[in-house]
Amino acid sequence: MTVRAKIYRLLDSESLESASQRMRGLEVVINLIGIVLVSVGTLEALSPNARAIAAFITGVVAFLFFVEYLTRLWVAPEAPHSATATSTNSRIRWAFSIGGIIDLLAIIPALAAASGSARLGAESASVFVLLWVLKLATRVAGVKLIGRVIRNERSSLAAVAALFLIVLFSAATIAHWLEAESQPQHFGSIPTSLWWAVVTLTTTGYGDAVPVSALGRMLGGLVMLCGISVLALLSGILANGFAEELRRREFVRIWDLVARVPFFSDVGAIAIADIVSRLRSRSFPAGATVIREGETGDSMFFLVNGTVMVRRGLFSKLLYEGQFFGEMALLDRKPRTADVTTQTPCTVLVLNVADFYHLAGQQPGLVSAIEAEAKRRRMTSVDTTTC
Amino acid sequence: MTVRAKIYRLLDSESLESASQRMRGLEVVINLIGIVLVSVGTLEALSPNARAIAAFITGVVAFLFFVEYLTRLWVAPEAPHSATATSTNSRIRWAFSIGGIIDLLAIIPALAAASGSARLGAESASVFVLLWVLKLATRVAGVKLIGRVIRNERSSLAAVAALFLIVLFSAATIAHWLEAESQPQHFGSIPTSLWWAVVTLTTTGYGDAVPVSALGRMLGGLVMLCGISVLALLSGILANGFAEELRRREFVRIWDLVARVPFFSDVGAIAIADIVSRLRSRSFPAGATVIREGETGDSMFFLVNGTVMVRRGLFSKLLYEGQFFGEMALLDRKPRTADVTTQTPCTVLVLNVADFYHLAGQQPGLVSAIEAEAKRRRMTSVDTTTC
Amino acid sequence: MTVRAKIYRLLDSESLESASQRMRGLEVVINLIGIVLVSVGTLEALSPNARAIAAFITGVVAFLFFVEYLTRLWVAPEAPHSATATSTNSRIRWAFSIGGIIDLLAIIPALAAASGSARLGAESASVFVLLWVLKLATRVAGVKLIGRVIRNERSSLAAVAALFLIVLFSAATIAHWLEAESQPQHFGSIPTSLWWAVVTLTTTGYGDAVPVSALGRMLGGLVMLCGISVLALLSGILANGFAEELRRREFVRIWDLVARVPFFSDVGAIAIADIVSRLRSRSFPAGATVIREGETGDSMFFLVNGTVMVRRGLFSKLLYEGQFFGEMALLDRKPRTADVTTQTPCTVLVLNVADFYHLAGQQPGLVSAIEAEAKRRRMTSVDTTTC
Amino acid sequence: MTVRAKIYRLLDSESLESASQRMRGLEVVINLIGIVLVSVGTLEALSPNARAIAAFITGVVAFLFFVEYLTRLWVAPEAPHSATATSTNSRIRWAFSIGGIIDLLAIIPALAAASGSARLGAESASVFVLLWVLKLATRVAGVKLIGRVIRNERSSLAAVAALFLIVLFSAATIAHWLEAESQPQHFGSIPTSLWWAVVTLTTTGYGDAVPVSALGRMLGGLVMLCGISVLALLSGILANGFAEELRRREFVRIWDLVARVPFFSDVGAIAIADIVSRLRSRSFPAGATVIREGETGDSMFFLVNGTVMVRRGLFSKLLYEGQFFGEMALLDRKPRTADVTTQTPCTVLVLNVADFYHLAGQQPGLVSAIEAEAKRRRMTSVDTTTC
Repeated sequence: MTVRAKIYRLLDSESLESASQRMRGLEVVINLIGIVLVSVGTLEALSPNARAIAAFITGVVAFLFFVEYLTRLWVAPEAPHSATATSTNSRIRWAFSIGGIIDLLAIIPALAAASGSARLGAESASVFVLLWVLKLATRVAGVKLIGRVIRNERSSLAAVAALFLIVLFSAATIAHWLEAESQPQHFGSIPTSLWWAVVTLTTTGYGDAVPVSALGRMLGGLVMLCGISVLALLSGILANGFAEELRRREFVRIWDLVARVPFFSDVGAIAIADIVSRLRSRSFPAGATVIREGETGDSMFFLVNGTVMVRRGLFSKLLYEGQFFGEMALLDRKPRTADVTTQTPCTVLVLNVADFYHLAGQQPGLVSAIEAEAKRRRMTSVDTTTC
Repeated sequence: MTVRAKIYRLLDSESLESASQRMRGLEVVINLIGIVLVSVGTLEALSPNARAIAAFITGVVAFLFFVEYLTRLWVAPEAPHSATATSTNSRIRWAFSIGGIIDLLAIIPALAAASGSARLGAESASVFVLLWVLKLATRVAGVKLIGRVIRNERSSLAAVAALFLIVLFSAATIAHWLEAESQPQHFGSIPTSLWWAVVTLTTTGYGDAVPVSALGRMLGGLVMLCGISVLALLSGILANGFAEELRRREFVRIWDLVARVPFFSDVGAIAIADIVSRLRSRSFPAGATVIREGETGDSMFFLVNGTVMVRRGLFSKLLYEGQFFGEMALLDRKPRTADVTTQTPCTVLVLNVADFYHLAGQQPGLVSAIEAEAKRRRMTSVDTTTC
Repeated sequence: MTVRAKIYRLLDSESLESASQRMRGLEVVINLIGIVLVSVGTLEALSPNARAIAAFITGVVAFLFFVEYLTRLWVAPEAPHSATATSTNSRIRWAFSIGGIIDLLAIIPALAAASGSARLGAESASVFVLLWVLKLATRVAGVKLIGRVIRNERSSLAAVAALFLIVLFSAATIAHWLEAESQPQHFGSIPTSLWWAVVTLTTTGYGDAVPVSALGRMLGGLVMLCGISVLALLSGILANGFAEELRRREFVRIWDLVARVPFFSDVGAIAIADIVSRLRSRSFPAGATVIREGETGDSMFFLVNGTVMVRRGLFSKLLYEGQFFGEMALLDRKPRTADVTTQTPCTVLVLNVADFYHLAGQQPGLVSAIEAEAKRRRMTSVDTTTC
Repeated sequence: MTVRAKIYRLLDSESLESASQRMRGLEVVINLIGIVLVSVGTLEALSPNARAIAAFITGVVAFLFFVEYLTRLWVAPEAPHSATATSTNSRIRWAFSIGGIIDLLAIIPALAAASGSARLGAESASVFVLLWVLKLATRVAGVKLIGRVIRNERSSLAAVAALFLIVLFSAATIAHWLEAESQPQHFGSIPTSLWWAVVTLTTTGYGDAVPVSALGRMLGGLVMLCGISVLALLSGILANGFAEELRRREFVRIWDLVARVPFFSDVGAIAIADIVSRLRSRSFPAGATVIREGETGDSMFFLVNGTVMVRRGLFSKLLYEGQFFGEMALLDRKPRTADVTTQTPCTVLVLNVADFYHLAGQQPGLVSAIEAEAKRRRMTSVDTTTC
């Protein structure tokens, strides 16, 4: 693999590798630092020194973005859809994609700063913040996920939005009727009343406009209740949609990991979907303690990649990818009998005791295989690997 | 089919056809424009020009509603329950139905505007807004759905409403006790205290009435917590009820679509209910890109109606209703190998990869049929249709 | 059955009969009227006439409660646990039960009013409202249900309450640190700061106490986020607990109704639990229209008790308890072909089309029985009963 | 078992025994008393007497914490992971664990109070409250649970947090644009605008900073809606995560209890997971009434430990651990026919009628075993045990 391909994979936003995940985390942190410092730079009361430091760090962030832009342009030909295209075509295609344009916009501050004065005007600072927030949005996995949820649930969301508008306009109109005479500055026209209506319907309640007549207050109470109900509906739709979308994404991710554990290869297709939906994945850096001797154990672990060391007193043993550990605590319900620490960065699949019992009911073969392996280990390796 | 029947189907609020859905969207937009412009017309500060424009557009909207009313009256005899009735009877029946009366009320502004002055008084503007909001409510699918949810859950909602009233009156009474002396203007009587209680219980918190004694503040804290809990209960009831009602409606809709895909016709009745609950429908206009080469694919598609073109480099092929595409990405977990664009407006059923794996467990026959078809395609059509 | 037994059943709060349900509704309405009028009586600005009317109606409500108390005392021996006890024992037992004591307290106003002046003092009015709210709470089914939910989820709720207290005290203490100097009147001591903390943590936000320092505002933002999260947890716990409790109650109710429909008597025990969880019950008064010709049908109905008339043009036919109707719309997916109106008050079990298809998969025998009956009806009764 | 081991188990935070649960409750109450009294001590307006009492009780609480610390240090060698370690090692290990350090910090007030003046300064009082709140947090089961939920859902929570930050900075920047001129004190810089943004986005709405321009108010309405949506997402994630974590914990707890009931020992592994998820546990103190004659019964009970007395008129009978009662109400749907009271503290497994029917469908053998036992009892023990 060439250096360019390696860098491409490092910057690939869909990659599940830990190096690339760390890269994305770094990008987000740098981006946030930039946004915060540009914001701070708009404070009138800032001392000249602090302002100079803020401006300098902002400049560094802008420069890093500039470097990133050039790098991404350079690695663009590695994108999978470019197999038949020329390098230049791939670069132009990326430069004119949404991500490319936003990344280009994000380096405008760098160019402006390089060519101009150290102190940004308040207006241009605002523009920089918005451009960098936009760039941040393209880097955060959750934004894409929430975009999908909104697309999936668009008909329900449209229904709630319509309901919201209906209540909003009705409330504003009736409040205008009831309160226009006594408070013309707040309820003198329907658009003016709308401000009160939206502040009340979302239960924000600034208190700048408040109905004073008895009927107006009854209306107010009713609008608050409607607001709570609309909020409840919205909450239900978004929460369910988000949970379902996450479940789907997680299922595919776990499915891919399960395929790398030989232990599950004998399990038939019917059982595997059930198993996959009960496993969770977890990543550990090198040197982390997965299991501590003496703790109450409530899960067993399947090692997807990496190496762990099982240590009990003076004995120790290495386990490699595809092997499992921690099954003793589930079979015997006793405290952990060994320490397990990671030697390299590891990804494990975690099976909780409740889900283990559920599986025990539906896939008895799986459990007896685990029991057999546990028994064999106890015989051959002086009880060190059974924790 | 006569012109009248065609127009009837276009205006039918239950129809799932895309022309009729677009018609409904247009109606909602016109309605909203009307509401917003009447509202804007009540602003005192508006310039005479702007007011004239607003009044003109309002008049156009009112005229369109007038035309719509006459059209609906004309096509009323096409309604299914009118098979044995005379045309006049059907029209009278529609004119006196709830929808007919609301539509009639909505054209009063048009008649008033035609006969009267260009500038509406503030009061009549309010009436217009309410009438048009009412009309809007009859056009929005969500309102009917939420009406059903409220009817289904009425016993739970009544329980929560009673609880709300109990907390409200208790809070107002105790606050009246504790705060009447120090703040007679806000807590001087129980009805006056009720305003504070409702503002606090819904966590709106205008801040116009605030308890000042230590006991009053403890009560306030307690009322806020009760408010959060009542909101939580309401949220749970409405959200669950809405989700269940949506699930039922969606199930029936997908069921109807599945019946048009021959591929599912061999599946037995037991399996079909399971499949239906895992499919989602999606509509595309003509010329839309459903699949883009090189993207990571996470679903396959069954074409319910319309035509799509599969293009890979120089080769291309048309697929017609009843056929499926995009299965390669699910079978091989590789990026898409072709572009798929719609030639006509299309409705597709989408099967997500997670749901595909679940089905693979429960309906192995289905998956092997897809695999067989995928293999056959690869042989015969130079790999173009497998994307 | 004696008159006393009949009255007992009418007043029985657990009874599912419609007469007794209406009785409970009437009680709740009278109770609410009483509460509202006592509340209104505390308004200083009330005219003497209005006050006299309010006092009179309050007196009537109090008298009705007095009559109700005597009646309940009289019918107490009919309670099921009193089979072996004497009448006097049963009455004493009821009088000293929680319900009996609350009902006794609720008639104190009547006695006070009878013996005293027409105008109640503000303090005694408050006491009356609280006593009547207490009585109302014993009559509302939801209060008992919510009591059960709180008992079931008490460990989770305690965890959230502890979390709430921890955040509350931490926030108040830190705010006291940060803001005590600049705003001693709001943050001068920890108890004073607690008021700000609770107002912020519940996102009520009166705005009477607001942090002004930069650190104080950061703390404020954090407290708001914690408040949202605590609200979210509380919401989830209560909503899930409520839904589960409702599901259990509904299951038992439907189970009892299903036992009265002979059609389901052949279904084995395994299937019945599945069917029960898919049916919903609905009550209609006499003369109500259950199905209207020409409507789109989405459910079929099993008549648990009462009589309905099926009418199609000139033909009509009566259906009695245990029979079903509306199956045509589910089998053929066409608009309703007949009107169905209730002749007596009716209770029906409703099977939605989505649930019908689900059952069709799992209980094919059930559906073929419905189809056979539908076919037989079409032959013998000139298509009138198939709607 | 030695005294030290007994005390260890009494103080063990993972123990499910009721003595140890009561101990934890007592600790939490003492802790809360301490926190409240230190808080009250910061009130300026407190009379010298009240201050002296508060200081005295605070001292007592601090002394109790001191005693507790020494006790925990003494019993540390009983911890399960210390089997091979020396007593001193175990104590040092505990003293340097997080729990040990927090407990040590919590006794600093005691030492300070012992060595210093009776009246604490405002600053040190704040420190005490925070230290004791920290100690409280380590004692509350819910905090650990919520910690797990946050760890499990960290990727979703990070997505929502990123979304929150994106909306927050965008809103603050645009508000700064729109409102900086008219309200420089509130919107003069982006950090200043952030306060308005966070107050609005969480729908707290203090009302200290409010947009006044038309565009600013539109932005405000939009921000409120975004706030509601973010709250909804957060709510869904936390609520689902919490429910799932609770379900897992409860499953394991019930599984352990079911193992002690011989009646379930014949049930195969497949069925047991299903049964476990339908049972709930409940604890009663000695002398409590579990079932009251004449009540409507909706559950049956399996006695896990303790003794209950069944009494019907003059007959009575004792039931011991492993036996069940209350099955009559489920089989016959009639009111309870006997009183059941606990003789000792009891733990029971509760099977609700709805879940009983569900099981009846899936595990017919279980129900017939219950019926057979019920029949046998009716024969032999004059119907006393069947309630």
